[in-house]
Amino acid sequence: MEVLPKFDSVFSIDCVIFGFDEGELKILLIERNVEPFKDWWALPGYLVKENESLDLAAERILYELTGLRDIFMEQFYTFGDVDRHPQGRVITVAYYAMIRLNGPKELKPVTSVARKAVWYPVKDLPKLAFDHTKIFQKGFLKIRNKISYQPIAFELLPEKFTLTQLQHLYEVILNKTLDKRNFRKKMLNYGILKELDEKQKGVSYRAAKLYKFDRRKYAKIFQNELSFGK
Amino acid sequence: MEVLPKFDSVFSIDCVIFGFDEGELKILLIERNVEPFKDWWALPGYLVKENESLDLAAERILYELTGLRDIFMEQFYTFGDVDRHPQGRVITVAYYAMIRLNGPKELKPVTSVARKAVWYPVKDLPKLAFDHTKIFQKGFLKIRNKISYQPIAFELLPEKFTLTQLQHLYEVILNKTLDKRNFRKKMLNYGILKELDEKQKGVSYRAAKLYKFDRRKYAKIFQNELSFGK
Repeated sequence: MEVLPKFDSVFSIDCVIFGFDEGELKILLIERNVEPFKDWWALPGYLVKENESLDLAAERILYELTGLRDIFMEQFYTFGDVDRHPQGRVITVAYYAMIRLNGPKELKPVTSVARKAVWYPVKDLPKLAFDHTKIFQKGFLKIRNKISYQPIAFELLPEKFTLTQLQHLYEVILNKTLDKRNFRKKMLNYGILKELDEKQKGVSYRAAKLYKFDRRKYAKIFQNELSFGK
Repeated sequence: MEVLPKFDSVFSIDCVIFGFDEGELKILLIERNVEPFKDWWALPGYLVKENESLDLAAERILYELTGLRDIFMEQFYTFGDVDRHPQGRVITVAYYAMIRLNGPKELKPVTSVARKAVWYPVKDLPKLAFDHTKIFQKGFLKIRNKISYQPIAFELLPEKFTLTQLQHLYEVILNKTLDKRNFRKKMLNYGILKELDEKQKGVSYRAAKLYKFDRRKYAKIFQNELSFGK
């Protein structure tokens, strides 16, 4: 096992990348090809270089381990338990992102640190390396809280979607069943959905109407209506 | 100037502690008694020890630098710009807290790292050491955003308060004037305020009614009414 270098490795980045695909919420995992935790599934994560800001390190690491680029990631928590890394004290800054899934299920890492990168359903995750299960859970909680006051769901859905898809995404993230009539009424009342003159294609059941997200209205609504105390 | 030790000093904690006092939002600053930035005003912050979790380090550091104890702090962001510390690469995990101010304006540090700790009005901050102005601003933004969807204001107010005090706090944090009638109507409609059979004492003008925060109702309201998508 390598001994940790002294200066450029006492902190790392780990990424929780959420995607929504075929009615399932997924995250991106890598299969590690290095010690410690060789052959384990893990969040895409690695050590920050000495001359690298955290944001740039996150971009580089995600790219090297999964081939993914130009993903808007945000920091959400820093994990610093004394014994979280078997080789010494390493604190890790966790980032998350939500993206639309429409590419292949398996991605090609650029570095040999990861053998492969795969989209895994959140409801069926394997045991993860380090404290990565805890990091994932905190990230999941983050988007679960956020979906209640920000329309982040739209970042996960395709450009055009049905109300059923939208409701299903909320149900998956909130982990509960929502009343269809109430949900639709509330969503349409916000005025942030644009009804399209278009229906689903290629479905065997009755095609549903497609909607788009009205970004202009969204910005306005979320600055005013949902604010407490104004 | 000391050379940084190799392992237990590459990360630090900085604390943004908000208090509300005499109609002013304040934060706690220390006057540094050590290099670098000796004699400068700074956020209470210092290096994390090798065998210390981040949360415990935050508690210890706040106590040592300001004498404050048993404050509920939450992590809000980690700052890792390459050049943020003149002695080398130090990333800092920032914590914040909101507390009721009712003690002395100047606090007594336990360690000689800080000469004194003082409550400073946010609208009139001095130039701060390191990137602490940036850290403060991010913390301020955090509570500004949070006040729109969580009743954090109550953490800053005394147990019993008038609606005018409540409105003033919102105005200070949001940095804008709010319409009195709308504000009161909205606040009372939430049903989270308990009107007391008691009025202000010791004021020269007409005494206003006092209110308390109804914690039971609050929990209910904030789980249901303000949620998007349920």
